[in-house]
Amino acid sequence: MSSIKKVVLAYSGGLDTSAIVPWLKENYGCEVVAFVADVGQGAEELEGVEAKALASGASECHIVDLKEAMVAEYIYPTLKTGAIYEGTYLLGTSMARPIIAKAQVEIARKVGADALSHGCTGKGNDQVRFEGCFAALAPDLKVIAPWREWDLTSRESLLDYLAERDIPCSASATKIYSRDANAWHISHEGGELENPWCQPSEQVWTWTNSPEQAPDRAELVTLSVKQGEVVAVNGETLSPYDCLVKLNTLASVHGIGRIDIVENRLVGMKSRGCYETPGGTVMMAALQAIDELVHDKASRKWKATLGGEFSHLVYDGRWFTPLKDSILAGAEALSAVATGEVVLKMYKGQVTAVQKQSPNSLYSEDFATFGADDVYDQSHAEGFIRLYSLASRISALNKAK
Amino acid sequence: MSSIKKVVLAYSGGLDTSAIVPWLKENYGCEVVAFVADVGQGAEELEGVEAKALASGASECHIVDLKEAMVAEYIYPTLKTGAIYEGTYLLGTSMARPIIAKAQVEIARKVGADALSHGCTGKGNDQVRFEGCFAALAPDLKVIAPWREWDLTSRESLLDYLAERDIPCSASATKIYSRDANAWHISHEGGELENPWCQPSEQVWTWTNSPEQAPDRAELVTLSVKQGEVVAVNGETLSPYDCLVKLNTLASVHGIGRIDIVENRLVGMKSRGCYETPGGTVMMAALQAIDELVHDKASRKWKATLGGEFSHLVYDGRWFTPLKDSILAGAEALSAVATGEVVLKMYKGQVTAVQKQSPNSLYSEDFATFGADDVYDQSHAEGFIRLYSLASRISALNKAK
Amino acid sequence: MSSIKKVVLAYSGGLDTSAIVPWLKENYGCEVVAFVADVGQGAEELEGVEAKALASGASECHIVDLKEAMVAEYIYPTLKTGAIYEGTYLLGTSMARPIIAKAQVEIARKVGADALSHGCTGKGNDQVRFEGCFAALAPDLKVIAPWREWDLTSRESLLDYLAERDIPCSASATKIYSRDANAWHISHEGGELENPWCQPSEQVWTWTNSPEQAPDRAELVTLSVKQGEVVAVNGETLSPYDCLVKLNTLASVHGIGRIDIVENRLVGMKSRGCYETPGGTVMMAALQAIDELVHDKASRKWKATLGGEFSHLVYDGRWFTPLKDSILAGAEALSAVATGEVVLKMYKGQVTAVQKQSPNSLYSEDFATFGADDVYDQSHAEGFIRLYSLASRISALNKAK
Amino acid sequence: MSSIKKVVLAYSGGLDTSAIVPWLKENYGCEVVAFVADVGQGAEELEGVEAKALASGASECHIVDLKEAMVAEYIYPTLKTGAIYEGTYLLGTSMARPIIAKAQVEIARKVGADALSHGCTGKGNDQVRFEGCFAALAPDLKVIAPWREWDLTSRESLLDYLAERDIPCSASATKIYSRDANAWHISHEGGELENPWCQPSEQVWTWTNSPEQAPDRAELVTLSVKQGEVVAVNGETLSPYDCLVKLNTLASVHGIGRIDIVENRLVGMKSRGCYETPGGTVMMAALQAIDELVHDKASRKWKATLGGEFSHLVYDGRWFTPLKDSILAGAEALSAVATGEVVLKMYKGQVTAVQKQSPNSLYSEDFATFGADDVYDQSHAEGFIRLYSLASRISALNKAK
Repeated sequence: MSSIKKVVLAYSGGLDTSAIVPWLKENYGCEVVAFVADVGQGAEELEGVEAKALASGASECHIVDLKEAMVAEYIYPTLKTGAIYEGTYLLGTSMARPIIAKAQVEIARKVGADALSHGCTGKGNDQVRFEGCFAALAPDLKVIAPWREWDLTSRESLLDYLAERDIPCSASATKIYSRDANAWHISHEGGELENPWCQPSEQVWTWTNSPEQAPDRAELVTLSVKQGEVVAVNGETLSPYDCLVKLNTLASVHGIGRIDIVENRLVGMKSRGCYETPGGTVMMAALQAIDELVHDKASRKWKATLGGEFSHLVYDGRWFTPLKDSILAGAEALSAVATGEVVLKMYKGQVTAVQKQSPNSLYSEDFATFGADDVYDQSHAEGFIRLYSLASRISALNKAK
Repeated sequence: MSSIKKVVLAYSGGLDTSAIVPWLKENYGCEVVAFVADVGQGAEELEGVEAKALASGASECHIVDLKEAMVAEYIYPTLKTGAIYEGTYLLGTSMARPIIAKAQVEIARKVGADALSHGCTGKGNDQVRFEGCFAALAPDLKVIAPWREWDLTSRESLLDYLAERDIPCSASATKIYSRDANAWHISHEGGELENPWCQPSEQVWTWTNSPEQAPDRAELVTLSVKQGEVVAVNGETLSPYDCLVKLNTLASVHGIGRIDIVENRLVGMKSRGCYETPGGTVMMAALQAIDELVHDKASRKWKATLGGEFSHLVYDGRWFTPLKDSILAGAEALSAVATGEVVLKMYKGQVTAVQKQSPNSLYSEDFATFGADDVYDQSHAEGFIRLYSLASRISALNKAK
Repeated sequence: MSSIKKVVLAYSGGLDTSAIVPWLKENYGCEVVAFVADVGQGAEELEGVEAKALASGASECHIVDLKEAMVAEYIYPTLKTGAIYEGTYLLGTSMARPIIAKAQVEIARKVGADALSHGCTGKGNDQVRFEGCFAALAPDLKVIAPWREWDLTSRESLLDYLAERDIPCSASATKIYSRDANAWHISHEGGELENPWCQPSEQVWTWTNSPEQAPDRAELVTLSVKQGEVVAVNGETLSPYDCLVKLNTLASVHGIGRIDIVENRLVGMKSRGCYETPGGTVMMAALQAIDELVHDKASRKWKATLGGEFSHLVYDGRWFTPLKDSILAGAEALSAVATGEVVLKMYKGQVTAVQKQSPNSLYSEDFATFGADDVYDQSHAEGFIRLYSLASRISALNKAK
Repeated sequence: MSSIKKVVLAYSGGLDTSAIVPWLKENYGCEVVAFVADVGQGAEELEGVEAKALASGASECHIVDLKEAMVAEYIYPTLKTGAIYEGTYLLGTSMARPIIAKAQVEIARKVGADALSHGCTGKGNDQVRFEGCFAALAPDLKVIAPWREWDLTSRESLLDYLAERDIPCSASATKIYSRDANAWHISHEGGELENPWCQPSEQVWTWTNSPEQAPDRAELVTLSVKQGEVVAVNGETLSPYDCLVKLNTLASVHGIGRIDIVENRLVGMKSRGCYETPGGTVMMAALQAIDELVHDKASRKWKATLGGEFSHLVYDGRWFTPLKDSILAGAEALSAVATGEVVLKMYKGQVTAVQKQSPNSLYSEDFATFGADDVYDQSHAEGFIRLYSLASRISALNKAK
């Protein structure tokens, strides 16, 4: 194994990374610096995390608050492209990875580390996302992925490993679901979900009410959008992160944002995941409503191309690439006019935009409904149709010859 | 005006086409043959339509049953592409136009007509769709679009016009909404909908219960899919049209399939429409669930391209074009593996696929969850990541030079 | 006809626009201001043009030098997207239209005109391009398109029309080809070209030597590219327009840049055109060579999407649209690294990049040729291939079951 | 190492595969069956290849003639999509790989082998192409890639290895260029080409005359195209392979089909290659000329999408995938009308279509040039333009408010 002196580990305080700290020290003979990214996964997950890291043997523990930056610099830009992976997945885990990797590299530079490590398994997307970002940001640093190296392949073996070293750990030997949370969403995998013919049991879901348990009365919420970004909720101007928190609170009550899908991982296999994205689902609906008003046909078609491409880029961990810069620049240009207000109705698992307006709206009651007017003369339609269908006409005449 | 002897009119029995019959006779001095397409708009719309046509002055009335053909030959192929216009609209009106135009041309050939006419207004998409199809199928026939020619621009003037000619008409002088129905959907425009800041009142909707009025208990429905086509509902094998009718019945009770959007018309303006597509929405959810199981990442990305392109093609009335043949051939090829079963939960306006299986599923519990195995060796991931991110690495090293 | 007081006419001094001046005055009773765009069509075309305009009856004649702006603000941006229409056409006429329309609107505002006019025929693309730009820039101004209104449908009738009014005109009654030139290219239509089975005779071509007449010795030329823009030729730093002029001179000697195509017009029909773009063809080859060095696989694929979309946008006259802003922003982002030097060989109608280098090159002799090294470990390839082909493997195993 | 009994090796008779035969036997203790694909690489390469294989220690040698099938089933379908990789590369090596891999699997099945091997290096695309095809066609067979395993990293070490075993080999210790040929093209890498700032010396090229050495008189050649396939040359009906051979002969004299590019390999790095594709370049020009005549604007735009996607698919070795089936089905549908004749001029390195005709041509001299007529009424243009630019107009009016 190559010589490594100091490694910065993306540490969560969970079972895996608790074991990785001593494993790195024993197997690489290196100092381990714990790095904890606060991306809104929740206070309970962060509580006592520094003490845990040190107890595991880390020399230092750096907790970095990335909540506001993640929403403002990664989520909001992604929303401007309209990216939805495979038509359904709102990219919750994917969007968090690049900012975590970037902050981890910054800590590595600060502490003079020569390696980076993470607790991602060898079958998932996250290893690719982390290491793809590392390659772009710190190609000189070594990367250690313990899950691809060690032989600790079960929770039991990990618990034994910690027990042998007297490292305290509150994790239980059995855990049905594998979950990952940040301000935007929480994901659930494993357990009965591994069979797509099994309906998720109610215990899968942790953030949202079930639609059945949701209130019997609908609730309206008003979002203000400025250049493609949600800037206020119910008239209250809030930071991006605070908008999201507020909407999570409102929407989870109504059971909004649950999805249950089988998706294609980047590494060639399929997986089944359940996701809860309550506030994000409301935001997407509001942004879509504004788009309906402000973009013409060609722009919306183009935006669908941008969003489709961007969804794969984000999912695949290619954030720090020229492709990202290019697509995002295209989406930012379109977003210049995406300003307005949307009232959304939340009810029993669904969110629906019921009122929408924009100063840049291309919708005009006058154009759409009245008879002949200055802007639109019905007689023009004949000419339009004749030229629009001319190639068809020529082709048909050709065949008749 | 050019000399026309016999025109076939797409006749609905409504106010507009009732007036068009005498108007064509008076203004073109021609015989008018009424053509009524039965696309599942409902028995009440067809009742007495032949008598009405003759009373208006038509020399003949041909009622053609297109219900099964429309679903089998126009809707099902479109579903195979995954086309959804501007991310939301299920193309209900658009998909009906080409088959109506085609049947109308066939009647024109049968009766030896030299012209075709329709009752579409000069501001909408339907005129383009009809006339685009006419251009492709019958470039030699003249087309008369009375709404672009006459000066009867209000319901009152149309009623007066009929009254002056003693043509009976049950239409009322005021009608809030303009509606169009076929087996797939019903659309609603006009009234308060002309202001996107107005929430649709409950009287807009005619097919579905509101989510609030829908049953308090969810209902499951099982769809069997074979090569991209729904072939059975709850285990009962049905024709395409009968599948749709059955699903409309089930889903409308649960308030499924309402959408309320501002869309870009082909003719350059925006319009606001409310649509109810209960059975279709369930079908789309089932087909998406099968796609999740059977298509790999590249295929799903490509299918999104096919569907995006096809949605504009169908919306824009370009059915009888080489582009349609090409995209559809591509979608048919993908659909070869789209076979399986999906259980969907209908509740309060929402439909969710909760169980899905396919003999062609690429999902494998083994690959996705276990440790090292024959098919997937975790150590391969390192190599994958290194090459996958090589360009980023080279670029980063370059910048560091 | 609607009341018009003062119209600004895009005036060329040719037969058509010479007749349009009196025709506008007689038919609209309005003052006519001539506007001449200098887009590099050549000194002989501009010589005496003001006198001619006044002799035709124009009240004023404004000649505006757009040469540098056209290359810098319209052609160079288009080149950054890589746009080539239908795989061959370098968009010479198309790129000139928006700047001409914009300058014409500016003159109209300056002189207080209430209408705009142009000499484009009713069958071509240019009418759409001009009027599309007018719609975006001056929706309040009327547009008069004499060719769609008058009955002067032959050169003879135009000459008679002028003779009757004693307006001097040097145009001859017969002209085989219709040509249009600007700094970027010259186009030729008509004559024997109207039959695609006819080879263009040598008299079609006016700018370039034929390959047969070109020198028997190749000539090298060096282009310096900075962020996607050609900034120097053979080491001499030049403005965009001067780069183009210089390259036109060099390349036309060698017979470079002739194309002969049948293209799809926007208005639904096909036309056959011959184009000469000597300097532009050399520029395109140089920019392509730089792209080869600096963009990774995903970026080049994406750039092909940008360029394809942009080619239709420019051809279709949609310059002043949000879509243009979006695509261009995406292309500008990619161009940030497109810097370097290219040596090109010009010989007998062909230009070939024979040497290329860039400080941002991702090509590395080390990576591409040596054995195991720090950046690329051959053993990684196995892992890459296994995951890259995993979906195929799973699918194949599935079928074998 | 896993237990392997019999391996089928893709054998060329060159230095690498000559060494692989004994290496496999020694390192895997298995029988080695040599498989030689005749893809038109030339008689001299095949001469004595069986004797060589047996002398190297192969137990059997199977030479399979794939020439006709490769052109008919891999190259012609690819041509129908219009695929050109990164705008320049005609995919010569890429198109040969799937048919070789497929035939190799067939031999493996016939002789009851349990493994496959190839001589591709660990840095190139071909390993991915071969193994990607193996994964799709024979996921149960092991794959051995000696270049990724052994330590024989120079020609000298390979020659020593053979000498030590008394295996005769005519290869020399130094070889400047690495070349790969099949009926479609020959590729050249290495030597001075490793520096993109070096112009290729004349000794790089082996098939074609240099443009300078090419005849001083142009030569015309006529290609007959039927549904997207070249079926006759100069009036002589020939099989696909014979068409290609004939055109190679004609075009190489005129120096046609040389390209010199830096391309993005699938494995993340760039490489510089020179390619000669004389006959193929003529075919592409002919097919493009027919496309100009027969496809409308939307179809050509769509075909560019198909071709772009297909070029990456073929380059990346994803032939045996559902994506290939889908894109190809789309391209076949378009090709139905791609029938006609093209006369091409070959001169000094360039091929130009100078005459073209098709029974399905949408070009019509009548439509494109005359005045008002039945099919195209110039007055229709106004209506077209008004609606076409309506969104721009509305947007502009909006901003002016």
